[in-house]
Amino acid sequence: MSREVMQDNRTLEQRVRAIEDRLEIYNLIAGHPPSADTGADYYAEIAYADDGVFDRGANLSGATGNKAIAAQLKSDGHQAAIAGGIAHFTGLPHIALDGDRAIVTSYLQILTPNKSGEAIEVPNHGSSRGYHIHRVVANRWELARTPSGWKIKRRTLRLVDGSEPSREILRGALAAYQQPA
Amino acid sequence: MSREVMQDNRTLEQRVRAIEDRLEIYNLIAGHPPSADTGADYYAEIAYADDGVFDRGANLSGATGNKAIAAQLKSDGHQAAIAGGIAHFTGLPHIALDGDRAIVTSYLQILTPNKSGEAIEVPNHGSSRGYHIHRVVANRWELARTPSGWKIKRRTLRLVDGSEPSREILRGALAAYQQPA
Amino acid sequence: MSREVMQDNRTLEQRVRAIEDRLEIYNLIAGHPPSADTGADYYAEIAYADDGVFDRGANLSGATGNKAIAAQLKSDGHQAAIAGGIAHFTGLPHIALDGDRAIVTSYLQILTPNKSGEAIEVPNHGSSRGYHIHRVVANRWELARTPSGWKIKRRTLRLVDGSEPSREILRGALAAYQQPA
Repeated sequence: MSREVMQDNRTLEQRVRAIEDRLEIYNLIAGHPPSADTGADYYAEIAYADDGVFDRGANLSGATGNKAIAAQLKSDGHQAAIAGGIAHFTGLPHIALDGDRAIVTSYLQILTPNKSGEAIEVPNHGSSRGYHIHRVVANRWELARTPSGWKIKRRTLRLVDGSEPSREILRGALAAYQQPA
Repeated sequence: MSREVMQDNRTLEQRVRAIEDRLEIYNLIAGHPPSADTGADYYAEIAYADDGVFDRGANLSGATGNKAIAAQLKSDGHQAAIAGGIAHFTGLPHIALDGDRAIVTSYLQILTPNKSGEAIEVPNHGSSRGYHIHRVVANRWELARTPSGWKIKRRTLRLVDGSEPSREILRGALAAYQQPA
Repeated sequence: MSREVMQDNRTLEQRVRAIEDRLEIYNLIAGHPPSADTGADYYAEIAYADDGVFDRGANLSGATGNKAIAAQLKSDGHQAAIAGGIAHFTGLPHIALDGDRAIVTSYLQILTPNKSGEAIEVPNHGSSRGYHIHRVVANRWELARTPSGWKIKRRTLRLVDGSEPSREILRGALAAYQQPA
């Protein structure tokens, strides 16, 4: 919480630069669901560092390197998920910016349209069988500034299911509150 | 990704202005769910341009002109949806700002409380039958700066259901990644 | 909507300060779900003012004072909710900043993993029984700047269920649209 003091040592330009960094990072995170739901390998190739890591835990496939991560979006499995109407939905991320590095902590829902079940009518909003929330995951994005913009060095996600790994990620957003002021 | 170069040509004031634009746009998007869920025609009348267009696709009603769009919020159908507890829930939007224009791409969930089914108890959080996710839609907001603030020129939304139109909207958020660096 | 005029009276430093305030507030709101889902009393103790109020309405417990609010996160009930996999999921908040005060309006979903029911397989995304959306609530956060950062003076939340109290909170986000231009 020593933000105020820190500001005294920075020029206005440096402060504006840090703000622009924050906004660029918001857009980087906001670009992920559209890329996942359209299979945009070109996004993953630019957004991840050459040696970037995508880690979904023990039960789902991951990849290392921006090209391998991008290739996953073109896999038969992922393309089938897209054809089924998968939607990635991100909440407001927490951003901890530290110069040329940043840690982003975010929640993400993965939704799919229900294929069976009763349709419900909502006035002025049509009829729908609704959506299934398939996964709710905690994400940790480790970012680095490069000459061509902010890049993902490592994205780690874990299912929020009452087990410890997702809580470990979430605590990462609260580091500033754990430190002495 | 030519952001860094672009900055060199801008004054600090211009950079701050662009940041303020971004934040004003976040608030414009964040104001939509409260307006939809309270039937706030006064929001729609100010937020949309005089010739603004609201396009929900072939199966749901749209409108042209800020007054007509506002009037929809007072329709019997929409008022019934509000009485039933409709909730619009927006994720983190992607903002592509280009001077006096901006393209915003966002996901939106439309939820309603379940009227039947088993109630579930969650410790310290009461009992609930839960909510139905009625629609998950991709939104494209085409905005323009006016002397009285940023206005919606066109809002286009399409259901995320595995069909092409929502993906076309989502790809709009990734345009910067498609361009040569 | 007199933002443009207002800016004329502010120095660039004042404008940058207001932007930093906005971004600090986004992080304060984004820090809440991780704190709720990990039981981080240390977050609540710093984020709430000494005399802060947490008001969940008539049917759920609230608390007054940052230490009492923090203690709730360590209660048996809340710890059981965490063990069950509770996830707080926040959308994009609306921020109305006014000098050393701010009103934030946000939607929040409270989710828990389904303990029964059919598991669904989504290609490339594993198998899951899905999540139950237990509550969708409208939140009003009344914030104040202090020498040690922005603090929550009062957080009021009400269930979105078609009744008036949540709509009253949501209308708070639209105050700028109700005022004469």
